[in-house]
Amino acid sequence: MEFAYDSRTVELRDKLSEFMDSHIYPAEAVFERELAGLDNRWAWDSSPTLHRLRGEARRRGLRNLFLPGENGAGLTNLQYAPLAEIAGRSPHLAPAVLNCAAPDTGNMEVLSLFGTPEQKARWLQPLLAGEIRSSFAMTEPEVASSDATNISTSIQRDGDDFVINGRKWWITGAMNPNAKIFIVMGKTEPDAERHRQQSMVLVPRDTPGVRVERAMHLLGYDDHEHGGHAELFFDEVRVPAANIISAEGDGFAIAQARLGPGRIHHCMRSIGLAERAPQLLCARADARVAFGKALSEQGVIRNWIAESRVKIDQLRLLTLKAAWNMDVNGNKAAHSDIQAIKIATPATVQWILDKAIQTHGAGGL
Amino acid sequence: MEFAYDSRTVELRDKLSEFMDSHIYPAEAVFERELAGLDNRWAWDSSPTLHRLRGEARRRGLRNLFLPGENGAGLTNLQYAPLAEIAGRSPHLAPAVLNCAAPDTGNMEVLSLFGTPEQKARWLQPLLAGEIRSSFAMTEPEVASSDATNISTSIQRDGDDFVINGRKWWITGAMNPNAKIFIVMGKTEPDAERHRQQSMVLVPRDTPGVRVERAMHLLGYDDHEHGGHAELFFDEVRVPAANIISAEGDGFAIAQARLGPGRIHHCMRSIGLAERAPQLLCARADARVAFGKALSEQGVIRNWIAESRVKIDQLRLLTLKAAWNMDVNGNKAAHSDIQAIKIATPATVQWILDKAIQTHGAGGL
Amino acid sequence: MEFAYDSRTVELRDKLSEFMDSHIYPAEAVFERELAGLDNRWAWDSSPTLHRLRGEARRRGLRNLFLPGENGAGLTNLQYAPLAEIAGRSPHLAPAVLNCAAPDTGNMEVLSLFGTPEQKARWLQPLLAGEIRSSFAMTEPEVASSDATNISTSIQRDGDDFVINGRKWWITGAMNPNAKIFIVMGKTEPDAERHRQQSMVLVPRDTPGVRVERAMHLLGYDDHEHGGHAELFFDEVRVPAANIISAEGDGFAIAQARLGPGRIHHCMRSIGLAERAPQLLCARADARVAFGKALSEQGVIRNWIAESRVKIDQLRLLTLKAAWNMDVNGNKAAHSDIQAIKIATPATVQWILDKAIQTHGAGGL
Amino acid sequence: MEFAYDSRTVELRDKLSEFMDSHIYPAEAVFERELAGLDNRWAWDSSPTLHRLRGEARRRGLRNLFLPGENGAGLTNLQYAPLAEIAGRSPHLAPAVLNCAAPDTGNMEVLSLFGTPEQKARWLQPLLAGEIRSSFAMTEPEVASSDATNISTSIQRDGDDFVINGRKWWITGAMNPNAKIFIVMGKTEPDAERHRQQSMVLVPRDTPGVRVERAMHLLGYDDHEHGGHAELFFDEVRVPAANIISAEGDGFAIAQARLGPGRIHHCMRSIGLAERAPQLLCARADARVAFGKALSEQGVIRNWIAESRVKIDQLRLLTLKAAWNMDVNGNKAAHSDIQAIKIATPATVQWILDKAIQTHGAGGL
Repeated sequence: MEFAYDSRTVELRDKLSEFMDSHIYPAEAVFERELAGLDNRWAWDSSPTLHRLRGEARRRGLRNLFLPGENGAGLTNLQYAPLAEIAGRSPHLAPAVLNCAAPDTGNMEVLSLFGTPEQKARWLQPLLAGEIRSSFAMTEPEVASSDATNISTSIQRDGDDFVINGRKWWITGAMNPNAKIFIVMGKTEPDAERHRQQSMVLVPRDTPGVRVERAMHLLGYDDHEHGGHAELFFDEVRVPAANIISAEGDGFAIAQARLGPGRIHHCMRSIGLAERAPQLLCARADARVAFGKALSEQGVIRNWIAESRVKIDQLRLLTLKAAWNMDVNGNKAAHSDIQAIKIATPATVQWILDKAIQTHGAGGL
Repeated sequence: MEFAYDSRTVELRDKLSEFMDSHIYPAEAVFERELAGLDNRWAWDSSPTLHRLRGEARRRGLRNLFLPGENGAGLTNLQYAPLAEIAGRSPHLAPAVLNCAAPDTGNMEVLSLFGTPEQKARWLQPLLAGEIRSSFAMTEPEVASSDATNISTSIQRDGDDFVINGRKWWITGAMNPNAKIFIVMGKTEPDAERHRQQSMVLVPRDTPGVRVERAMHLLGYDDHEHGGHAELFFDEVRVPAANIISAEGDGFAIAQARLGPGRIHHCMRSIGLAERAPQLLCARADARVAFGKALSEQGVIRNWIAESRVKIDQLRLLTLKAAWNMDVNGNKAAHSDIQAIKIATPATVQWILDKAIQTHGAGGL
Repeated sequence: MEFAYDSRTVELRDKLSEFMDSHIYPAEAVFERELAGLDNRWAWDSSPTLHRLRGEARRRGLRNLFLPGENGAGLTNLQYAPLAEIAGRSPHLAPAVLNCAAPDTGNMEVLSLFGTPEQKARWLQPLLAGEIRSSFAMTEPEVASSDATNISTSIQRDGDDFVINGRKWWITGAMNPNAKIFIVMGKTEPDAERHRQQSMVLVPRDTPGVRVERAMHLLGYDDHEHGGHAELFFDEVRVPAANIISAEGDGFAIAQARLGPGRIHHCMRSIGLAERAPQLLCARADARVAFGKALSEQGVIRNWIAESRVKIDQLRLLTLKAAWNMDVNGNKAAHSDIQAIKIATPATVQWILDKAIQTHGAGGL
Repeated sequence: MEFAYDSRTVELRDKLSEFMDSHIYPAEAVFERELAGLDNRWAWDSSPTLHRLRGEARRRGLRNLFLPGENGAGLTNLQYAPLAEIAGRSPHLAPAVLNCAAPDTGNMEVLSLFGTPEQKARWLQPLLAGEIRSSFAMTEPEVASSDATNISTSIQRDGDDFVINGRKWWITGAMNPNAKIFIVMGKTEPDAERHRQQSMVLVPRDTPGVRVERAMHLLGYDDHEHGGHAELFFDEVRVPAANIISAEGDGFAIAQARLGPGRIHHCMRSIGLAERAPQLLCARADARVAFGKALSEQGVIRNWIAESRVKIDQLRLLTLKAAWNMDVNGNKAAHSDIQAIKIATPATVQWILDKAIQTHGAGGL
């Protein structure tokens, strides 16, 4: 359980921090303006700034850091954690520039682990190159999808094809026309054992019968910076049998394998965001005067700052422990640790961001 | 401290509940669709459904219930409380139909209490009739506006006119082109005693020098259903001296007078919303199955329901006590009670709504 | 739902407040010293101060205020609420002086409602006169006693007697040798319908086979000021059949009837205590200097004071609503309201007392 | 930041765990009974069981593990952390047997770091051997002692002596007649710079003028298992000038040096206790049935278990980080980390213990 950074992490961390300071933070406002001016609100990866910065990240060797193994940077979870955290400080721009943004990261992992050579050549390579984007179509409106055995989309074998029928929603990234490929989870064998009923198939966006119904809002946000969240209909959608990932009945296992890294990446990025918030809070609290003294002299604000510090430190250490456990004992053995950070992170980060918003008054909104 | 409803309240409550069931709830979805189809996103009060329902509310004697005294329905705060709560259950539509929506309510109160006969004829009457809308321009970006003595907009006497210069933001309703009149708070006498520096003047929207700069977002929402929140610039804006409300130096006192009823109305409506949330939660918890049993059989969900009930009951009683205190002892004497509901209501209602959202899963967003 | 005090309540409240100021508060320290000097630690009602003050309370007509009907003061729950709250400010001394202390209050209610004339003459009269004390023996160590159907003590009819066998614990007041009578809950008909198996019998303390095993501690306290909490054994204890309360099989229903008033009295007294705590907190915060300024100038302390005020007001109103509901619609109809105050009161009062303790530093312990 | 146990820690941990299982846990109840039977309630270290187990601990090389440097076991904070945690699972007995109990640990550290050879021979050696006990007399009733500059006890030089006058309270361990030596903090130079006014002197218990006034209670507990908490008076107490620790004016600096390790040891032991609580909770939840199913099947209980796990893991990691920081960068550099665990530990452990108590029902008290 050595949490100190090794030499490769230190080197990448220094390079990444320098890149954030010199390229990412200064470009945040420009990027938002470019997105606001798009003809297609969802085609965020057509932003010129994004393209420019991606090139720069490529030259600096800062892309695909999330991906273990030979297809990616080959980092351990513990090595990647502090890098993901830094990227999370600029959540709209940095992960995209670094090609480390969800849901592509999870999809690339699935293809890297379970894809055939043909699937890798056709979809993984352009994803790694940042040329296309992808979505992961699991959640359904009619059933409690947190219990994946509830999934009701049907994937039926018909000769050399699979035929897909179903309705999905909250499919992140799918509003972006450049999300060229969907990984669709459904049931191939509804009568099999509970965790062997599901399969995953690759469905190109332009396949007949695929319909992008509407964009969804998460509270007030449409998250167009990530390609939004779409409701999708699959109506007699036909793909070749070779589009299956791994094999029929492997869907539940692949989903579980995908979830572990996906969850810890979210946590790492959230911690980065949580770290940026009190920095902004402190600057504001020093600059703003109310009722005769600076906010930073008010006891309640000082208490928020101290509590934020204590909470972030605990959260980061818990996440590093999960990363270490995944590296050493595997994702399955680290199951409880991954659940722990999924419980702790959203509640903690929400608390911290709320305090930063409150300290900014109306401007914090 | 008699919290039971008197006969007039019971009668209005029955009429209002019937109107909600027969007209408001069935029209909610239609209203949202009409707003989505508007050419001018902010011109929400041009919705045909709204017009139709307003006429119906007028026929039933259900308009302007918020306004005490002869100009309005003449209800006490305690009489109005359960009515505002019912309206709050449909927060986008009902208050607008009933002509009981912020910020017009507070502005009508100010005009009713402090307006000259000319000001009442020109602005209060069309507001009471629902023909125009209004905004209240106090908050400024450069200063902590929760401390109203910080206000920096200048209002200078120049012959028979006042000349206004300043910048305001978060001015609710001002994006709506039908918000024809702004009450603007600024400083007429910067060297006077701390609470006598401020004045309020009436500034018609179409006065030269008034500029509506942009719409603001509250978290992800632009609140176009209420006319949004605008950033406004006042650049050498000139209005006749007769547009002063009350007298020079009275601004702070008027703002305080306006705040009490404004705050309690918000609390009442929020309680209505908080009451609707667990109803939806319970229906969902009965209908949804996860991990082998209905959500309503899960202990954590049951605990949320019980806690919601306990919290709402306490909150309502505290709000009724504040209303009673305002009625009997006046807004100033009830100052601490109004502060208490302002502390308790947002935190409590947020907790309750969060639980209802969680129980709905992704659909809750 | 008229929460204002009627004339009788106002009169009793004034008399009681005067009595607290002139007699109770000044005697608190003396009473504690007398208890510390007792030969029998548990015989708290032999304190001379207690006897003296009881006489004074009797002369002033301030005893047995809790008891509705002709046997007691005949107050409603709403009338009694503010009086119980005042008594609760001095929890060790005032309820005992006023003969309004648990568990005697509940036991007197049971006897008053369900006792035969003989039972009333033998036990209720000396209890009302404060000559003896009593205990209520329900909770058992081997079963989850919050689910009263779990009770395992057996009460078997044998000719003209009942024979009792069982073990009870947390029997409040039973360490006091002057607790002359126990109301014992057990099962007379284990095979009857679930809520008709239980009965209650009167067991005089000196009946052969009754054994007071040991005093129990509640966290660090033995609560000798209330007669402690005893573990009791009943070994072939024989009492006449006439000692049954009401009838065989009525035990569960009587327990439910007893619980409602018992719970609300506890809540009322707790609110009185919660009201005294911030008074002490404020005095301390003004008097104590740390890190260069009075505690009352520290934002966190000021926040505690405001939150305490908001929480107490909500709690009192909820309790008054439950009292009103019990008065108007009966204890059964008010069941949910009584549950609500049982949920809200301990958690809220604990929060408030904790803040008062913290503000007193080590002295607060 | 390597948190994994090194070989020495693993070895000691195994030995200590074995000792806990074979000797400590089985002796807990015996020890409590022996204490209950003492003539002098406070002379806890005269327990025969304690003496027997101490001999056994000495034979196994498990004593004084807390003390770095040549006088003790020479462990780092990171090495000691898991051992202190194990000892904390049996908080009354294990630390005493292992000679790792507060306040002796801090006092031995002070003597080890700052004592003269004579002071070490006279007081440190018998403390290390467990022959005598000690107290640390800093807190005073009249001032906010958390701000150590407030201390008001006077220590005046008079020829070859110091003369001490003052009143102390909450002096842990001082009720034990075997607490033979007090380290007393007071002011030697009230006019010096703020942090140079204080000094510490060694005052043998039997010095004329030392008066042990009374035992204090912490909530209901007198903590006689640790020698209680005493109020002490020092009235013209005269000790030789050679009893000064370090030099005049060094008192504040020594107190700060003492606090760091003292605080982290408390945290480590508390985590051990927090780890034992959910074990007991789970066992109880499986064994107890209420309202038709085992407590361990109730969602709220399951939620408590999960949250306890998540909270403990975060707390332990934060404490290990502080230990690591102290080892590598020194106590002063680790100041913020030590503050962080002091903020997080009591609140977290209280939450966890409360849930374990609740799950045990009345038996949990």
